[in-house]
Amino acid sequence: MKIGFIGAGRVATHLAQQLQRHYEVVQIYSRDLLHAQKLAFIVNAEAINEFEKINQHLDLLIIAVSDQAIPSVIAQLKQLNFKGLIVHTSGSTHLNVLASSLDRVGIFYPLQTFSYESEINWQQTPLFIEAREKEDTELLNNIAQLLTEKVYQYSSEQRLSLHLAAVFACNFSNYCYDISKQILDQKQVDFSLLYPLILETAKKATMVSPDHAQTGPARRGDQNILHMHQNMLKAENQDNFLDVYSLLSQQILEKYQSNK
Amino acid sequence: MKIGFIGAGRVATHLAQQLQRHYEVVQIYSRDLLHAQKLAFIVNAEAINEFEKINQHLDLLIIAVSDQAIPSVIAQLKQLNFKGLIVHTSGSTHLNVLASSLDRVGIFYPLQTFSYESEINWQQTPLFIEAREKEDTELLNNIAQLLTEKVYQYSSEQRLSLHLAAVFACNFSNYCYDISKQILDQKQVDFSLLYPLILETAKKATMVSPDHAQTGPARRGDQNILHMHQNMLKAENQDNFLDVYSLLSQQILEKYQSNK
Repeated sequence: MKIGFIGAGRVATHLAQQLQRHYEVVQIYSRDLLHAQKLAFIVNAEAINEFEKINQHLDLLIIAVSDQAIPSVIAQLKQLNFKGLIVHTSGSTHLNVLASSLDRVGIFYPLQTFSYESEINWQQTPLFIEAREKEDTELLNNIAQLLTEKVYQYSSEQRLSLHLAAVFACNFSNYCYDISKQILDQKQVDFSLLYPLILETAKKATMVSPDHAQTGPARRGDQNILHMHQNMLKAENQDNFLDVYSLLSQQILEKYQSNK
Repeated sequence: MKIGFIGAGRVATHLAQQLQRHYEVVQIYSRDLLHAQKLAFIVNAEAINEFEKINQHLDLLIIAVSDQAIPSVIAQLKQLNFKGLIVHTSGSTHLNVLASSLDRVGIFYPLQTFSYESEINWQQTPLFIEAREKEDTELLNNIAQLLTEKVYQYSSEQRLSLHLAAVFACNFSNYCYDISKQILDQKQVDFSLLYPLILETAKKATMVSPDHAQTGPARRGDQNILHMHQNMLKAENQDNFLDVYSLLSQQILEKYQSNK
């Protein structure tokens, strides 16, 4: 099987190297030819920066570009009358975005944080596949099984929910850490004092459900502490933090009061 | 040195057993005598449920009750004319709350989650001490050093900030996990798929600052995804989650736009 990549960033770099162990990676496209050449050199492929040069005999073309760039890539591919399977690697783009313009389409989405610095533990990485045609789903399933045992055939709707949920569980929890650090910095208190609690809280959410793991003044309905904390944030003019504190405390209060 | 406890809950249970290795734990007070007896039996102390029975020769009396119960305990102790040092173990009660009614007062606050089921790793537990008088600070420091190397002399203001910061870093991040799980439950997607990302996000915040670790659509300024996510939450009538999504995304957007 011959594989090509649109994009030469982090996802493409990790995925191309991994797939090259089993298949022939033939072409790497990037708007920036130097960028394409860098990855092409690693996987022994051809570097291109024009869509017209895409090899018509590729079996699989993998779009690994930022979400914002996907529509313009699709518009270019539409001109080519390409016969192979075209997939994208995004968690947050619906299959229909490809299907409305292209023929054989699918999704190949690894749920993982990719960076240039560290190796990916593929065996521990969930991989979500989806395709319009049944044969293409099977093809993607076969490829995915070579990378990880954790292969899931999810609908676009489920995959998009997973991405939305990850924003809460990861991006927003990190922003809560960030606020926490800013509060401590202002009082010359070392943020590292909270490391054990932060790690324990994350671990606990994977062992009992977060619903049962919830603690804190709002969970206990301790209005004295809630008011004291709000006054502390007011006194420091930390209006943004106060807004977050009030909204989340209110929701936690309501949730556990009505559960009583 | 003779030590007494007001309270026989989780903090008192762990602390009394640990201090008993070095000192004499003489009395355990609880409103509920059976409760007091349970702990008193373990540490070989006297169980009492009347303040008048508190031994006037105790060197140290440790208040380990819920924050809400502290004022009424203080009011009772005020009647006794007790000469020893009185400390509380709360992260969120100012020294002044004791100092306004009592003579020799201090704080002995272990930053840890206590449960009946699991052992405490005292060596890894930060312990915050504070006292009105210098000699009492030294006394508490000596006791604390026997439990952990991580002893900090922090002001009440710093300690209260630490507790406020912990609400963001732990209670609120857990609530974000909870929302995440509810979103997935509704689509029959397994929450455990997010465990690796949750653990990695927590670990990352302890290795690089959360400010640098921030990722996600708001961090990238990806308005398409932000709108799509908001529409998904609207479509499911998840108004509470939408409020959290909108507030946190807006703050992250503003933070990183103005940093550019």
